[in-house]
Amino acid sequence: MTIEPVLKQIDLDLDAALERLMGLLKIQSVSTDPAYKDEVSKAADWLVDDLASLGVTATKHATPMHPMVVGHVGDDSDASVPHLLFYGHYDVQPVDPIELWDHDPFKPFIEDRDGKKVIRGRGTSDDKGQLMTFIEACRAWKTVHGTLPCRITFLFEGEEETGSPSLVPFMEKHADELKADIALICDTGMVAPGVPSIASQLRGMLKDEFTLYGPKMDLHSGHYGGPAVNPLKEISRIVASFHDDDGRVAVEGFYDDVIDIGDNLKSQWETCGFDEAEYMENAGLTESAGEKDYSILEQQWSRPTLEVNGLWGGYQGAGSKTVIPAEAHCKITCRLVGDMDPDDIRVKLRKHVEDRLRFGTTVSWDNDLEGAPASVMNTDRAEFEQARQALSDEWDREAVFVGMGGSIPIAGLFKTVLDMDAMLIGFAAEDDRIHSPNEKYDVESFHKGIRSWARVLAALS
Amino acid sequence: MTIEPVLKQIDLDLDAALERLMGLLKIQSVSTDPAYKDEVSKAADWLVDDLASLGVTATKHATPMHPMVVGHVGDDSDASVPHLLFYGHYDVQPVDPIELWDHDPFKPFIEDRDGKKVIRGRGTSDDKGQLMTFIEACRAWKTVHGTLPCRITFLFEGEEETGSPSLVPFMEKHADELKADIALICDTGMVAPGVPSIASQLRGMLKDEFTLYGPKMDLHSGHYGGPAVNPLKEISRIVASFHDDDGRVAVEGFYDDVIDIGDNLKSQWETCGFDEAEYMENAGLTESAGEKDYSILEQQWSRPTLEVNGLWGGYQGAGSKTVIPAEAHCKITCRLVGDMDPDDIRVKLRKHVEDRLRFGTTVSWDNDLEGAPASVMNTDRAEFEQARQALSDEWDREAVFVGMGGSIPIAGLFKTVLDMDAMLIGFAAEDDRIHSPNEKYDVESFHKGIRSWARVLAALS
Repeated sequence: MTIEPVLKQIDLDLDAALERLMGLLKIQSVSTDPAYKDEVSKAADWLVDDLASLGVTATKHATPMHPMVVGHVGDDSDASVPHLLFYGHYDVQPVDPIELWDHDPFKPFIEDRDGKKVIRGRGTSDDKGQLMTFIEACRAWKTVHGTLPCRITFLFEGEEETGSPSLVPFMEKHADELKADIALICDTGMVAPGVPSIASQLRGMLKDEFTLYGPKMDLHSGHYGGPAVNPLKEISRIVASFHDDDGRVAVEGFYDDVIDIGDNLKSQWETCGFDEAEYMENAGLTESAGEKDYSILEQQWSRPTLEVNGLWGGYQGAGSKTVIPAEAHCKITCRLVGDMDPDDIRVKLRKHVEDRLRFGTTVSWDNDLEGAPASVMNTDRAEFEQARQALSDEWDREAVFVGMGGSIPIAGLFKTVLDMDAMLIGFAAEDDRIHSPNEKYDVESFHKGIRSWARVLAALS
Repeated sequence: MTIEPVLKQIDLDLDAALERLMGLLKIQSVSTDPAYKDEVSKAADWLVDDLASLGVTATKHATPMHPMVVGHVGDDSDASVPHLLFYGHYDVQPVDPIELWDHDPFKPFIEDRDGKKVIRGRGTSDDKGQLMTFIEACRAWKTVHGTLPCRITFLFEGEEETGSPSLVPFMEKHADELKADIALICDTGMVAPGVPSIASQLRGMLKDEFTLYGPKMDLHSGHYGGPAVNPLKEISRIVASFHDDDGRVAVEGFYDDVIDIGDNLKSQWETCGFDEAEYMENAGLTESAGEKDYSILEQQWSRPTLEVNGLWGGYQGAGSKTVIPAEAHCKITCRLVGDMDPDDIRVKLRKHVEDRLRFGTTVSWDNDLEGAPASVMNTDRAEFEQARQALSDEWDREAVFVGMGGSIPIAGLFKTVLDMDAMLIGFAAEDDRIHSPNEKYDVESFHKGIRSWARVLAALS
């Protein structure tokens, strides 16, 4: 079975593929808001029907929240045919603030923007448009050759934007049905325009939160200012102690299980096309505040962080209030790399805070916040090099293994729950505005994304 | 004219005096809420009538907000008769949170609490009950001797609890009418139960507020955590830098104009009856966080402070949000002593912050917040020793000159606007719960307060 006619079919069928995508985009599958429950379910039905149209038997499985769609295609009797699991999610982020959209988020359309065609609407990039790149690649194979080059299991989730509460129980319950040779995930982006990227490592995360208690009630700063301990002053001192002057986290033992990325990956990153200046400028940053002696890319992809995401106490209204508040609050997330264990880091972080309490202040912790270790993909597997080659052929540019500063728990879960490696390939652009008003997806991302998957399927077969 | 029959008249008339006070307490003169505008006006009318009943011609003067009541009594032709201005305020704090009151705040009554009688209701202590101690003392003098021992101007304000916006313009416009030899103010408390107290110094105040700006928008802590400057981290570092490890304010030049109180006042304070242990325990404090080498009383009364009253930025809701916020906020008040100039301290404080900005962060300041210097009473004047002696006689305990950690702007305004010294004498108890639910005033404070003023009038005459 040759790839060339498949690619040709993809080109010929592009308008129809875009039309199909519009059908999915119109469904308001906002997973976090119970008001859209029926819409989420409708999107699941849409996928079951669409898979059926290319000969895939798919089932909508109920969960305590939103359905999972699972479909299978290919012959399971021939062990030499590779078995792939493809994962995507069909739910979307809420559209708030709606007033910042230039159009109805659920009336998608194609816009010609300075000669570049973009698909506009909620979910175009995250993740409906990306998910459909894989389905359309399968459709083209099926149309041209009557069959697919690999055995494929499809797993589409409707809860990704609301923390995936049903995912692990579902994976555990359906482990036999879901287990494949390798998982493919299409929910990431390209490191720079036109640079095909395989995400080979993701940072993990630890969430924690504490309240610092001082006086037993709010005090008047005239009457008690001086003798009274001020929780805002104390929490500031503690937060300030989290980092040293070189941007390193000063929590004892924080870096114990960090693993250096090695020169090979480092040199790949240096030439991967990531534009440091543009990255900083996009956020209005003039200089890096991260660890000295590490590049911005390393700070973002391979170094752990401790960030305060919320800090508050006392009076926040207009004007002035002469209060010494009874308490102050701090929300923290750490990004983890290498072998850093969230539970271990949590212990170290809490000890750091508790060792610094003064003047009778006390602290309480939120024990309901989870953590997840970093994910490092098993790039030694042959599939990674095969996919990298396929992507390089399509984009006419060497594909790169990149890191990601964020966390995609699903990648780690395939490993921990199903003992299955995962490969993350995606075509989102930096300016797609995912999770924000005016989300878009480039028609080029969609078109070449479909062609990319068609080539990857060939390469893996 | 002798004092003894006046004191006897006060004792005989106590029940009637309490009944009169109830009349004033029932009026809902909440100055800060426009819904109570008529009630505030009604309280002014009540005072005009009550002054008339003791032969004082009083006038209600309209202002842009609430009325001023000014009354005069005594012969202005004899320069040897001392001329006193008495100041009190007849407006009260709002009653919120109303659900924490054990009774209707405006249905005052007398309660027997473990053998001690207390007057309960909003304004009993702050300041209607205190104000009436002076009026009742005048009434007793008038009843017994047909005249008062001093010439007196009464000034009653209805805006004290809402920042006194009309006070300075009114004082300026009516300067000739208001100017007297000395002002008497009854709006303070006793340093300990049964210890008559003259407040001889009040701390001043400087208010300021800044916003620290980092990235140009909220960032994702996965995508930008590491390279991006975090305003919460930066503001914490700056707030932590406000003090050194000994509790001293580390702003350069902050203490330049502090004046040491001297050994005489210091030894008076040491024996004034202030109970440090109880003061700390009342606030749930186990040890002082103030400046080393200063007593708790000195930290509260004679040392300047820099307090953060509000600090906030980022996400404050339930759970976690992986945000690096674009900005962070800090509200500050400084308590000032000696010759510290609010404008000078503002400049120094701002320089301290601006000198510590890093990584392209910027700062903006709220320029609408005022300041006022400390007030030190002119205790060298003969009236202070005369009053001290009169109070000592009444309470059978040496009266003391005390400091106050808070600020009472009116004392300073008499000096700056009318070039008139002021003397602050009051009978409120530490547990009167002013500004809070279940405000009360001890019947003993009221009764002996009236007797105290009767003696002070005799002593000053």
